[in-house]
Amino acid sequence: MAALIEMADYHQAHLILTTGGTKLSLRDITPEATRQVIDREVPGFPELIRVSLRAGGLMSALFRGTAGLRGQTLIINLPGSPQGVSKAMLALIPELEAALFSIQGRDTFTE
Amino acid sequence: MAALIEMADYHQAHLILTTGGTKLSLRDITPEATRQVIDREVPGFPELIRVSLRAGGLMSALFRGTAGLRGQTLIINLPGSPQGVSKAMLALIPELEAALFSIQGRDTFTE
Amino acid sequence: MAALIEMADYHQAHLILTTGGTKLSLRDITPEATRQVIDREVPGFPELIRVSLRAGGLMSALFRGTAGLRGQTLIINLPGSPQGVSKAMLALIPELEAALFSIQGRDTFTE
Repeated sequence: MAALIEMADYHQAHLILTTGGTKLSLRDITPEATRQVIDREVPGFPELIRVSLRAGGLMSALFRGTAGLRGQTLIINLPGSPQGVSKAMLALIPELEAALFSIQGRDTFTE
Repeated sequence: MAALIEMADYHQAHLILTTGGTKLSLRDITPEATRQVIDREVPGFPELIRVSLRAGGLMSALFRGTAGLRGQTLIINLPGSPQGVSKAMLALIPELEAALFSIQGRDTFTE
Repeated sequence: MAALIEMADYHQAHLILTTGGTKLSLRDITPEATRQVIDREVPGFPELIRVSLRAGGLMSALFRGTAGLRGQTLIINLPGSPQGVSKAMLALIPELEAALFSIQGRDTFTE
């Protein structure tokens, strides 16, 4: 959590991607930790990831990841498995450019 | 926010639709303002809107809108663009009648 | 709510399914009651249920149900109608085995 805050506030990262810690075991607390550092949730990203996992034949409901903004830094939780990350990234990439533009107040894409 | 409360509590509106303020810039705080005036969230409406945006070739993950109930008033955030509002409304309309019946405790439709 | 807590903490149930109380009338407060007893939400389950209701020609946006973990007990809200429960269960079953394994820290399935 301290690492997320440092990357967002000190290094002013535009985008932070995390992997893993998103399933159901007692140690899977990435979404809760992420929620503590973001100001505003962006539920469409985890939703899109679950759609892509489902379409790719992977378990989708188990993915508890979230996404949100800390100021102008976008933080997105990804699944832990390489296959899950791959499916998720393919689904996210078409929307990431629009997201990063929107964060800067430049709305060249239509929602 | 005061306007939402007045429409819901004083004018007892059955349905309030807002547009815009739902993306990622620092000024996009409609979902947070809406969450402050509702008692119970209705996550299926924003989910359905994102499905319709995606199906319509628009950016879907950027739409952060929410929906919820303040007493018996249903408040739904819509996107800001005319195309987004159009796609969203087409998706919502088939469920709106059932929603307004359900709010009154008249469950003639099946969930 | 006391019943949920007793089943989870005293009887150490692995899985609790509730039905009904998930729509929009003033008495529909199952999601809010559930949220009070869970530690961590699992939004993928209600999302999957809404996808299945939509695919089955039922109202989907009206389903406000949630799901989450209380320790190692998984609690999932189901719709109130027999048709809704049937559609929801068919969609959930393929992911339930993976979910129950994941809760025990045994990740044999890929998200």
